[in-house]
Amino acid sequence: MRAVDLIRKKRDSGAHSPEEIEFLVSGYTRGEIPDYQMAAWLMAVWIRGINRSELAALTETMLFSGQVLNLARIPGRKVDKHSTGGVGDKTSLILAPIVAAGGLTVPMISGRGLGHTGGTLDKLESIPGFNVNLSLEEFYSVLRECGMGLIGQTAEIAPADKKIYALRDATSTVENVGLICASIMSKKLAEGIDVLVLDVKTGSGAFMKSKKDAVALAQTMVGIGQSVGKKVAALITDMNQPLGRMAGHSNEIVECVEVLSGGGPADLRELSVELSAWMFFYGQKTVSVAAGRRLAAEMIASGKAKAKFRQAIALQGGDARVVEEPQRLPQARARVDVPSPKGGYITTTNCENLGIALAILGGGREKKEDRIDHGVGLEFHARIGERVKKGQPLATIHYNSDAKLADARALITASYEISGAPPKVRNPLIYQTILKDQDRDAPSSRRRRTR
Amino acid sequence: MRAVDLIRKKRDSGAHSPEEIEFLVSGYTRGEIPDYQMAAWLMAVWIRGINRSELAALTETMLFSGQVLNLARIPGRKVDKHSTGGVGDKTSLILAPIVAAGGLTVPMISGRGLGHTGGTLDKLESIPGFNVNLSLEEFYSVLRECGMGLIGQTAEIAPADKKIYALRDATSTVENVGLICASIMSKKLAEGIDVLVLDVKTGSGAFMKSKKDAVALAQTMVGIGQSVGKKVAALITDMNQPLGRMAGHSNEIVECVEVLSGGGPADLRELSVELSAWMFFYGQKTVSVAAGRRLAAEMIASGKAKAKFRQAIALQGGDARVVEEPQRLPQARARVDVPSPKGGYITTTNCENLGIALAILGGGREKKEDRIDHGVGLEFHARIGERVKKGQPLATIHYNSDAKLADARALITASYEISGAPPKVRNPLIYQTILKDQDRDAPSSRRRRTR
Repeated sequence: MRAVDLIRKKRDSGAHSPEEIEFLVSGYTRGEIPDYQMAAWLMAVWIRGINRSELAALTETMLFSGQVLNLARIPGRKVDKHSTGGVGDKTSLILAPIVAAGGLTVPMISGRGLGHTGGTLDKLESIPGFNVNLSLEEFYSVLRECGMGLIGQTAEIAPADKKIYALRDATSTVENVGLICASIMSKKLAEGIDVLVLDVKTGSGAFMKSKKDAVALAQTMVGIGQSVGKKVAALITDMNQPLGRMAGHSNEIVECVEVLSGGGPADLRELSVELSAWMFFYGQKTVSVAAGRRLAAEMIASGKAKAKFRQAIALQGGDARVVEEPQRLPQARARVDVPSPKGGYITTTNCENLGIALAILGGGREKKEDRIDHGVGLEFHARIGERVKKGQPLATIHYNSDAKLADARALITASYEISGAPPKVRNPLIYQTILKDQDRDAPSSRRRRTR
Repeated sequence: MRAVDLIRKKRDSGAHSPEEIEFLVSGYTRGEIPDYQMAAWLMAVWIRGINRSELAALTETMLFSGQVLNLARIPGRKVDKHSTGGVGDKTSLILAPIVAAGGLTVPMISGRGLGHTGGTLDKLESIPGFNVNLSLEEFYSVLRECGMGLIGQTAEIAPADKKIYALRDATSTVENVGLICASIMSKKLAEGIDVLVLDVKTGSGAFMKSKKDAVALAQTMVGIGQSVGKKVAALITDMNQPLGRMAGHSNEIVECVEVLSGGGPADLRELSVELSAWMFFYGQKTVSVAAGRRLAAEMIASGKAKAKFRQAIALQGGDARVVEEPQRLPQARARVDVPSPKGGYITTTNCENLGIALAILGGGREKKEDRIDHGVGLEFHARIGERVKKGQPLATIHYNSDAKLADARALITASYEISGAPPKVRNPLIYQTILKDQDRDAPSSRRRRTR
């Protein structure tokens, strides 16, 4: 087998055998196939496409290019959730304690925020002392102790994906549904999980602006899961406005605790419960999604989920008192409201720009090397469809520096569209659920509640 | 400007400005843009295509990446010919003396044979002492002295093309009409010529098997010439059987001398005169192609072309006596006929396989490093449409080693298709002429003489 022949095959729209994919990806990871051949192949894949069987082979080769967590000695089914990212998207920190309290194991390997989206690891690091860099042995020990653990990707996890991703970044071959899905799935499956629930966001604050693209991505990821023998469900959910009321790192921890305490904003609560419910159902803890919802609600009402969160924080070196005393989290030194420039109904928000406004304040990264200010944040007071008066605050900025305040403020003001009439279309929180082929008749969660 | 953005643009079927092409190609040649980015861009170009203005910019950037010959001090118009290659294609060694004898300057930079095709440099090296590796100063001096010179590509000529070609070879991005044409044209234009006549071959012994592909290639090359302000004409000519009667290095020199002496096979004589005629016409030596044909015929009849060939050989260190005494050329030690396996009409030949048979005997290269046996060759006795009796020789093999003789013989026998009825279609020697847009009404050379 020669790389040059496989490049030609893909260039001419051919389909690779699993052995050919393995040859290319493993050869590249070992340094036997040079960057320039992989770059030509990736561009051919980007343009010509990659089918389901090729994707499965690509995912598996990347998955087994490194260490796959061995959770055999840890009892219970292992389940996880992955979100494609958005603004105020903090469900991981709510559902992990719910699901762990319900008796499943959640070995969560998360990422950091980039651009307008936040990252779970950054949010956790606003808790004083919280260590996301556990060794794998420490991680196993935390999982055994409390059923959940939250760490970052290590060098041993899917090195092929790491190498290929860096090359894609330099060769404009990132934005391809197949390659994106294989990259995500190879890392998630390296956690050694049985079940993965995907939250695929769509709307102005999501990477997939159109629902069609989000569905395609979800179908591809569920398809890969099916090909490699894992249970994968994907929920297509709305990201036309921030999830919950809070964005920013300390802010979001506070809001998570609110939900775990039985309160919090309705949309955040509902989505967290829904994702937990699918994890319970696919993790065989409940016989249906509906029963999963009930179990999740019970874990909140009983205080077990909150206690689990406290335990998890403590086990990873964090100050668990933040759960009861949020003032122990980094706080911004000042607050200022962003008033509505006019009266009327909020018809849309440019949710991506709201995320960028947070980043401008220091609560996000432009480049991977940038440092995060955990104390700054945004509080959103008005949601799409609501009526506001002129001067009424749309949002409150929690800030530390005046430097970029005016920019952030202007961007937030401009992100709201306010009209004399209410919006004609009201987006549901959850658009639809994408399941494995044989699960199409499983209990559906298509509830059309508007946000 | 960033390479990654330009890759994205081409990936998305965008068209580059000349500045963008210059940035990519010059940056790559200087080593500032890495192989992997160029590889991704080349694959995107291969699949998405490249328009006429992009091709002109690509050709010019590659052309000016190195030295462009400065022939200003050498009097007269500079003209050259390029052929896409075939079997027995030796017209360069006939038309260069004709055209130089007629008063134009022919600064010819040629290549070597590869695969089933022969190369001008290899043929010249069958002449004892002939030196194709002149320094540029020596080359200028030869041109000034006799109006023609024949050398190989130097490291100073179009280094960008050399670097890009090597990368294309390793990334399956070779077979693209635009990239092929830019590569050829950048090297040819580096000769500092005013006029280029292209012989684009089509048929079983050509790289372009179909006439459609040959026409597309010719149009692209003529288009590039037009874009960069050079006069370029392309003749689409037949390569369904060898040109002339001889293939092999010494053999072809002998046949060239035959034509320069007023004899030789009709097809070789006609094509050499026709190409010379276009060089004379475009080089403004004659007022029409017809007058160019007459001048070419006169150069042969008067012996001036043959004398010019003798002079050129001597000036480049070769033994000019080979012109009168062909036995001074390397000779094969033995000959054997390949008899026709049956009687009938020759309907087609697999011309590429005839070229491969020659290579098998040692008269060609599989790899660039292989050495050539100048003495071996093939002599073809029967042409398409002719009637042969069973046992009548189709060809004669001139060979030095018995090792591969049987293989070559079997391949030659299998290359002829012999039928009870003559072929229905008779291919013309010259199918059509592709000219610059404004020259469409120029005197046409479309003569439909069959071969």
